[in-house]
This record gives sequence, C-alpha cells and structure tokens, in this order.
Amino acid sequence: MMAVNLNQADKLLAIEGIKLSAVAAGIRYAGRNDVVLVEMAKGTTTAAVFTRNAFCAAPVQICREHLSKASPRYLIINSGNANAGTGKQGLDAAYQCCQSVADNAECEREAVLPFSTGVIGEQLPIEKFPPAVESAFACLDNDAWLAAAQAIMTTDTVAKGVSKQISLSGKTITITGIAKGSGMIKPNMATLLAYVATDAKIDQTQLQEMLVEATEDSFNSITVDGDTSTNDSLVLMATGASGVEINAENRQTFQALLNELMQDLSHRIIRDGEGATKFVTVHVTQANDRDEAREVAYTVAHSPLVKTALFASDPNWGRILAAVGRSQIKQLDVNKVSLWLGETQLLENGMPEPSYTEEKGQAEMNKQDIVIKIQLGRGNVDTKIWTNDLSYDYVKINAEYRS
Amino acid sequence: MMAVNLNQADKLLAIEGIKLSAVAAGIRYAGRNDVVLVEMAKGTTTAAVFTRNAFCAAPVQICREHLSKASPRYLIINSGNANAGTGKQGLDAAYQCCQSVADNAECEREAVLPFSTGVIGEQLPIEKFPPAVESAFACLDNDAWLAAAQAIMTTDTVAKGVSKQISLSGKTITITGIAKGSGMIKPNMATLLAYVATDAKIDQTQLQEMLVEATEDSFNSITVDGDTSTNDSLVLMATGASGVEINAENRQTFQALLNELMQDLSHRIIRDGEGATKFVTVHVTQANDRDEAREVAYTVAHSPLVKTALFASDPNWGRILAAVGRSQIKQLDVNKVSLWLGETQLLENGMPEPSYTEEKGQAEMNKQDIVIKIQLGRGNVDTKIWTNDLSYDYVKINAEYRS
Repeated sequence: MMAVNLNQADKLLAIEGIKLSAVAAGIRYAGRNDVVLVEMAKGTTTAAVFTRNAFCAAPVQICREHLSKASPRYLIINSGNANAGTGKQGLDAAYQCCQSVADNAECEREAVLPFSTGVIGEQLPIEKFPPAVESAFACLDNDAWLAAAQAIMTTDTVAKGVSKQISLSGKTITITGIAKGSGMIKPNMATLLAYVATDAKIDQTQLQEMLVEATEDSFNSITVDGDTSTNDSLVLMATGASGVEINAENRQTFQALLNELMQDLSHRIIRDGEGATKFVTVHVTQANDRDEAREVAYTVAHSPLVKTALFASDPNWGRILAAVGRSQIKQLDVNKVSLWLGETQLLENGMPEPSYTEEKGQAEMNKQDIVIKIQLGRGNVDTKIWTNDLSYDYVKINAEYRS
Repeated sequence: MMAVNLNQADKLLAIEGIKLSAVAAGIRYAGRNDVVLVEMAKGTTTAAVFTRNAFCAAPVQICREHLSKASPRYLIINSGNANAGTGKQGLDAAYQCCQSVADNAECEREAVLPFSTGVIGEQLPIEKFPPAVESAFACLDNDAWLAAAQAIMTTDTVAKGVSKQISLSGKTITITGIAKGSGMIKPNMATLLAYVATDAKIDQTQLQEMLVEATEDSFNSITVDGDTSTNDSLVLMATGASGVEINAENRQTFQALLNELMQDLSHRIIRDGEGATKFVTVHVTQANDRDEAREVAYTVAHSPLVKTALFASDPNWGRILAAVGRSQIKQLDVNKVSLWLGETQLLENGMPEPSYTEEKGQAEMNKQDIVIKIQLGRGNVDTKIWTNDLSYDYVKINAEYRS
C-alpha cells in the first residue's frame, strides 16, 4: 500500500527553544518508539484546538483543564492507546502520566499537556510511563522532529512533517510541524495529532487567533470517512527565540506561511488516508455562503458511491450529481448546476455538456490527483475541501486492525 | 455472496384488479426480463411518494406531472437504465415510453406512470420499448408478481416481495408488495422502487395519508450508505375489488397491516444491501425528540468505522461511542449515555459497565442480526433505524459495476 504522491517528511528544521525525544515504552506496539516528550523553553506561548466530539478522551479533558491554569512547558504524547472511553480510571492515568513528567522536570503538573492516540476503550498501561519518561528526559534534542513524527504514527504509512522559512525584519523565521492521522478524519479535526512550532515571538491571544485561522482551510477542510475522533489535538508553539516579534505589520506575511504549512500538513494526511489511491479536491463555486458550499462539498466527499467510483477510476458522474442533489441546501435549481472533472466539463446548467466523451472523463479519472468542480450558480462564495477514495484496503485496515 | 437471513419472496398473492407482465427488452442486460407493465382496473386509487433528491430523474418528473392530471391506469417500469441526468432528451424518451403504453391501451398518456432504475447519465434506448410494450400487453396476468419482482432487480441478489391477508367485515383483504434496491439507500427513499397493491377500497386522500404513515417507519428509516437516489418511487394501489371499504372503524387495523408489510419489505432491502453480512438495528432511546433520536441513529449507522467493525464482528464499541459523540445534537451529556449490544450492556452513564467482557461483546457481534441500543438519558422519545455493514463486497460491487 502506498500513500498518494507522498514521500516521507523532508529534512525537518530544528526550532530554537524546542527539544524533543522519542522512546519505546511498549504500550501496544513492539520494537518501535511510541512515546514522545516535547520540552518548550521558558517564555514559549502555546495555542491549541481540540476535537468537538462530545466523548472527548481523558487527555483532551486534561489539556483543557491544564491550559486554563498554567503555561505549558511539556507535551507528553503516546501512540497505541487513545485513553478514550476509559472513565475515571482513564483520567487518573492521564494525570499520573503528567505527574511523571512534572516529577522529572520539577515543574507543576499543570504545565504538562498529555496526548494519546490509538485504540479506544482500553485502559492506559500507566506503569510503563515512569521509566519511559525518564529515558525521554535523558535524550531530549532539538533535532528530533522526524523521530517524533515516526513515533506518533498509528495506521499512517508515512511520517508527516514540513518545515518552512521566511525572512522577517532581516532575520530568518522557521516553522516546523508534524502530524499523524489517516482515518477518522473529518472537519472539526480528526484522529489527528499535530504539533507546530516556530521561533517567532507571538503573544498568546494572537497565537490562538492565528491557529484558528490556519486550521479552518487545512485540518477543518479535510475528510477521509466522515468520522471525527475523540482525541484530535493541534498545538501551536511560539518560542520567540529568533527575537522577531509578530506585529500588525508582519502578521499577514507570517499568517500566510503558517496557513501554507498547515494546509500542506493536512494534505499529507489525506494522501496517506487509510487505503487511499486518489487525492481528491472538491471545489464548490458560486454558492450563496460558506455553509452551503461546504454542505455540498462534504456530501460529495462522503458519498460512498462517489468514493468507490473514484477508487475504480470510473467517470460515473451520475453519482456526483446524485450527491449534489441530496445535499441539504435550500431550493437548489439543478438547471444552474455545472460540473467539471479537472479541465473536462461534464454538465452545463444541469444538462450533459455536448462535447463530453467517456474517453475524456476516463483520462481525468485515471489521474492520482483529481479535482471535482461543482458550480452552483447561486452566489459568489467558493470553497475547497480535500478527501480520498474508498478502497478494499480501507475496509481491510478498519476491519482487521482495531484502531 | 448471500443476503443476510433472507430468502426469495414467498408465494405472492394475486390482487384482484391488478395484472402484471415482465418481458425482456434488452435495455442493458441480456437474457433476463427488464421491463414490467402493471395494469390497474378502472376505479383503482393510487398514492405515491418520490425521492427528495433535487436531481430527480426524468420518469420521476413525469410521474409527478401525470399524477396531477389523471388517475393512473398503467405503470411502465424498466431496469438497466435510470434515465437520470439525461436532460430534455431523457424527458422526451420517458414521454414516448408512456405514449407507447397509451397507444396499446387506447388511453390518455397521462394515465401512464413511468419508472426507471439502473445506470445514471446514459440515454434510454427508446427504440426498444414499442416491441417490448406490445409483448407485455400480450401476457398481462394477475399472478405475475414474482416475475415482476425479478425483472426490476439491479444489484439485488434476491427478489423481494411480501403478501399479507386480514379479515375485515367478514371478507378477506389482501396486500401484496414488491421492491428493489440494495445500495444508495437512505432516509427519504432510496434507489428504491416499490409497488404495493391491495383489494381494499380506499379513497385517494386517505390512501396517500396511509402511504406516508407507512413509509415513515419503513423505507424512510433504512440506510445502506447514506446515498439517496434520483429515482426512488413508491406506489400504493387500492383496487377496491374486495368490496370492503376502509373507513374510520377499520382504518387502524388496515394501517397496522400495511405498516407491517412495508417494514418487512424495507428490511429485505437492508438484508440484501450491497455486500451486507449483518442486519443491524440501531435503537436510540430517551431522546428529547424524534429529530435528535434520528440524528444519533444515522450518525452511528453511516459511520464507516462502525460499519467496518460490524463487518469484522469486532466489538469495538469505542467507534460507536465516537459516532454518538460527534452527532449534531445540542449539549450531549456523555455521563448520561448508556450502550448495549443486544442484551449485553457496554456502557452505563458514560462509564464502562463493570461486568462487561470482551467475550460477551464478541458473542453479540458474531450474530448476523445485531441490535445496537443507545440510551441518551435526555427525554422519552425512541426510534429505530435499520442498516448493514461495510464489507469488501460493497466496495467491489460499487467499484466494478456501474450502477
């Protein structure tokens, strides 16, 4: 199985003020790292967004609590077990996990944020943490981003990470981000853990605003299977070590770079979606507003019939049309809807485009990167979301592996 | 591939006043019947409901038009081609198809209702209809319900039909229904054609009310994959040939029988869902209202992760919990949610039920008929919907067959 046009993360650049380590605690997997420790220099600001799933996991509950009480200094992350659906025992385990980090660092427990990903509904083997945490402290390093990206993988086939640099006020600013997640991905986060850090100096309020903006057209615009997870967490850290402060003047430039990096990271998740063989952009244009544009886009992106046609490289556009027609938008006039696959027009104002041929449609569908464009003829809002296809391997991965 | 605990329709009982025939027109399939003609005796009343998909097919548009102008005397149904997404040419083809029936019957075109199911986006081979319609008139028979059920199949593996009888006013009343559809099934109809007839006498207004009521907890409460079709149509005919009139006194008795028959028919569609290996009842209790009960039930029923776990017979209840948690209901208190698989309780007020074991969950999941019960602890409304699992064969059928 291969991700769609996706290679392992390139060289990831260190961020001054951030140290990481990845160690093997044997939580579920043997012979691989499964615990990551992240240490932030004093003065680092942190912003975060979390799953909106009502059944959020124990670590998510504790992250919210700790963030309200203290400035984070450490992140402790494990793969193999999500510590979700585990009740009070799960909360206690996540607290102990933080305490173990706090004991080593001699900081307060509230300065530690816990994250877990893996199987839901099993208790975390908490006894494995103290020795793992101790080893993790012993090997903290500012050049361990790729190792961390590998250690947080579950059904991912490729480690995901991106670095970007820009010059601001004559100095070089770096952003590096890693992420994991390949199923259960949907708007409003995913089985998704993502950690992004920069050496720019950004106050906490501004950092949170910038994170929310960057999330909207990246992690909140991707979907594999419509399922959102109990554990989704996205953290943005700004160490300030470059000495360059983000202010009204340079904010837009920095935001654009952050958006680009987060969109890149989020697309890697879709390209490595469970069983994916296609990377699909659903582009909806001429909607009245963003809500209806997204409703149409997600109805198409979640349609199992559209997704299996994509897997089969079958230009069965009737399935796309049927999905548009059943989306929950008011008074859709089908005589104003036009449809394209890539550059090939299929439908013009609700009618088959006369020049369309099956061969043209087939040529578009044979590609690995496919763009479905749906023009609604209602207004002037457009949106893009990203998804992939539904393959035998999606079923195989989710039927055979308890994730 | 086998449908889940489903055999071919039993002996279907004739309805006095209804004649049917099934013939081979070679529309798409070779060596099988693919056109059905239904003739209703004069005085028969007819009620119908159709897809709410904005892209409804040409025959659905014409059914609506014809029903507004005349009392139906004939139904003409074809499989192999849906005549959807076919523009003005498709409308013309469906009109011609009706005209061909009208010419043979010497009735007005508006007394004929057309129905199509099969591939979307290809033009109907209209030249094949006149000879097929002529043959169909030659072999009309009141005992051809099973042949009709077979002729309307597409990806169905089993012909679907049910008959029921009841004694009213000292006379026997019969209801017989047939249906087709196995994918693209979702609330508010499906790729679903269903034809139900009775020899009771029922005025048109009452008949429409009774059909709408019976549809709600049958065809509007099933889902295979969340996709609704462009062609869904459900017709209820009452010939009155028994001489027994449905009135205020016996209406409830008759309605109950109709509900039962339609629920049975709709369950057969789910049992024969594309690639289905499980028949799953999602039972939501203690909701505030029907809308939120259905929102939770459908979120669980449409979750690909829940559906693949069902296919794997894996009691991975974390996926059910995650789906409940992401359903769009307001202020869900997870500490009031309880969960059962069959008789086995998994979760009590948001916490794992202490007596639950993996073995108990496995025993429930090994069954072919599975009940997932979700108790919300919010109100006193409950609802049931029916679905099936997501298997390799679902992907295979939809990736390899252009339906």
